[in-house]
Order: sequence, then structure tokens, then C-alpha cells
Amino acid sequence: MPRTAETASFKFNHTMIRVKDADASIKFYTEVLGMELISKNAFDSFTLYFLAFDHSNGEDSAETKLLNRANREGVLELTHNHGTESDPNFAGYANGNKDPGRGFGHIAVTVDDVEKACERFEKLGVKFQKKPSDGRMRHIAFILDPDGYWIEILPTTMKLPGE
Amino acid sequence: MPRTAETASFKFNHTMIRVKDADASIKFYTEVLGMELISKNAFDSFTLYFLAFDHSNGEDSAETKLLNRANREGVLELTHNHGTESDPNFAGYANGNKDPGRGFGHIAVTVDDVEKACERFEKLGVKFQKKPSDGRMRHIAFILDPDGYWIEILPTTMKLPGE
Repeated sequence: MPRTAETASFKFNHTMIRVKDADASIKFYTEVLGMELISKNAFDSFTLYFLAFDHSNGEDSAETKLLNRANREGVLELTHNHGTESDPNFAGYANGNKDPGRGFGHIAVTVDDVEKACERFEKLGVKFQKKPSDGRMRHIAFILDPDGYWIEILPTTMKLPGE
Repeated sequence: MPRTAETASFKFNHTMIRVKDADASIKFYTEVLGMELISKNAFDSFTLYFLAFDHSNGEDSAETKLLNRANREGVLELTHNHGTESDPNFAGYANGNKDPGRGFGHIAVTVDDVEKACERFEKLGVKFQKKPSDGRMRHIAFILDPDGYWIEILPTTMKLPGE
């Protein structure tokens, strides 16, 4: 079913999650996952960080990436409310996978080789919710970001039963 | 900073949220937002639905979309735990924006004309968290999906202060 003209321009641009410590999260999403920080937008009490994978083989300039930020898919927005990173009374954010607060489940990154990606994650000290060897689903894994949000790691060739 | 070979294949493939009533959610994401249902994967106690916008101008077949499901960005996964849609004791899912359960914030859809898109949403009876005319940010809106998850509507040309 083709889209009608009314929604033809629509893109699933981004997903926003709140993070306790912006430095830790930026380090994780750029160094561990390989995303790039496209923009940082500071306001009085919070800062927004927009990250995404570069699919231009390094050809797009930072300015082009910035201009295209809202005109693409696969962007991750991190909201940092200032002060949470050093507030001893801040209990942390809900990851959405347990009550109370169940709803959001995870974000997912597809990779060409899950085993190899997970070996690298282990070397980098990343925490796992599920290693490829855990349970029955050997071809997928779940890693945890610094706030404990789940990130599914699955192959780009993934097919599910029933497909 | 170009990506290293180790993460060169990585894509931000999907975001997963749990939904109470699969039929209501599928109707909303396809008819209101214009996404397509790429696959439906039923298990004993739950069913997974994968939706995404078609950016091929209707040229990709359903089979091609299915094959590319994990090899693209901008996919939305809905998890329906069977029975919640008719369980009077089910309290609903947390949308992530209030305590307890604060963490995940929203997904965002970019559109060429926010005013026009929102006029259409109003006609279709969509609930708003923030209409374009509310508050100071006149160029963005937040609509609510059937579970109350926030969906930001912003222009594809969006630029933020500080950029």
C-alpha cells in the first residue's frame, strides 16, 4: 500500500531518551557504537544531543550532517537535565522494562557480525543484558548503555520465524 | 570523525515500545502516520509488529521490504502481549514522561509542513500533547499514540538554537 500524498514526506526521524550523565553517554554512543554527535543544543536547565550513524562513508561534512539532521531516519536524541550526573538523590531513569515504568523496551542496532561485535563490546567492558550465548536466541544480544537502557544487537540479515 | 571498520556496518535499526491493543496501534501508525506493516511475528504469548515508512516511492515489493527490515533505519517495533487489550486489570504502559517510569521521552516524525500535518491529525481525531499553537515552540507539536506515547512532529528543515 503506497503512502498517500498527505504523509509522503514523513520520516521516523528520532527517538529520545533521558540520560543521567551526558559525558558517559556520549562516550558510549560514539566510541562503543560508532555514532557521531551531530549537534549539541544547550538550554538553561538541559542540553539536547543528537547522534546518528554516518552512512556517507565519511563524505558528508559536519555542516551537511547538521542540515540533514531532521531530514533522515535513525537519529538518537539524548536529553540531559543538568545536575543529575552529580545529584546523590537522583535515582536514575527507568529503562522501561520493569514495573513501574514498563512501556518502552529498547533501541536496536543491526550489525553485520553479531559475534564479532559482541567480542569487541566485551573487550570494551560493556555490560550485557543477554550475551549471544545466553538462552535460545543465539543470533542476538542485548547490551546496556550507561543508564541501563537495553540495546538489541542483531544481524542486518535477521529474519524472524513467521516471515 | 569517520567510523572505524569495526562499527562500519552498524545501523540504528529500530525502537521497540509495548502496546496494549495491537489493532488500535497498527491502525494509528499506518492510517494516521502512513507507516507500513512490514512483518508480523506471532509467538505463544506475544506478537511483534515491525512498521516503517516506505522511501522507495512504492517501488519496493513487500518481499524486498521484509528482506531489508534489519538492513535499514527508522523501523518501529510494537510488542503486543496477548490479552492486555481486554484485561480490565491492565493499567496500561508508562509513556516514560512522568514518575515513576521517567526515562524514554518520545519518538519523532519529521514532516514537510507541520501546520498542515497537524490540521489533518485534528480532523482524524488524534490527541495532542502540544498543538503547534501551544507554548513558545510554534513550529513543533506532540501528538499521542493510542497508548499515550508522545510523538513529536517537527519540520524536516528543523534547526535548533545553537546550531
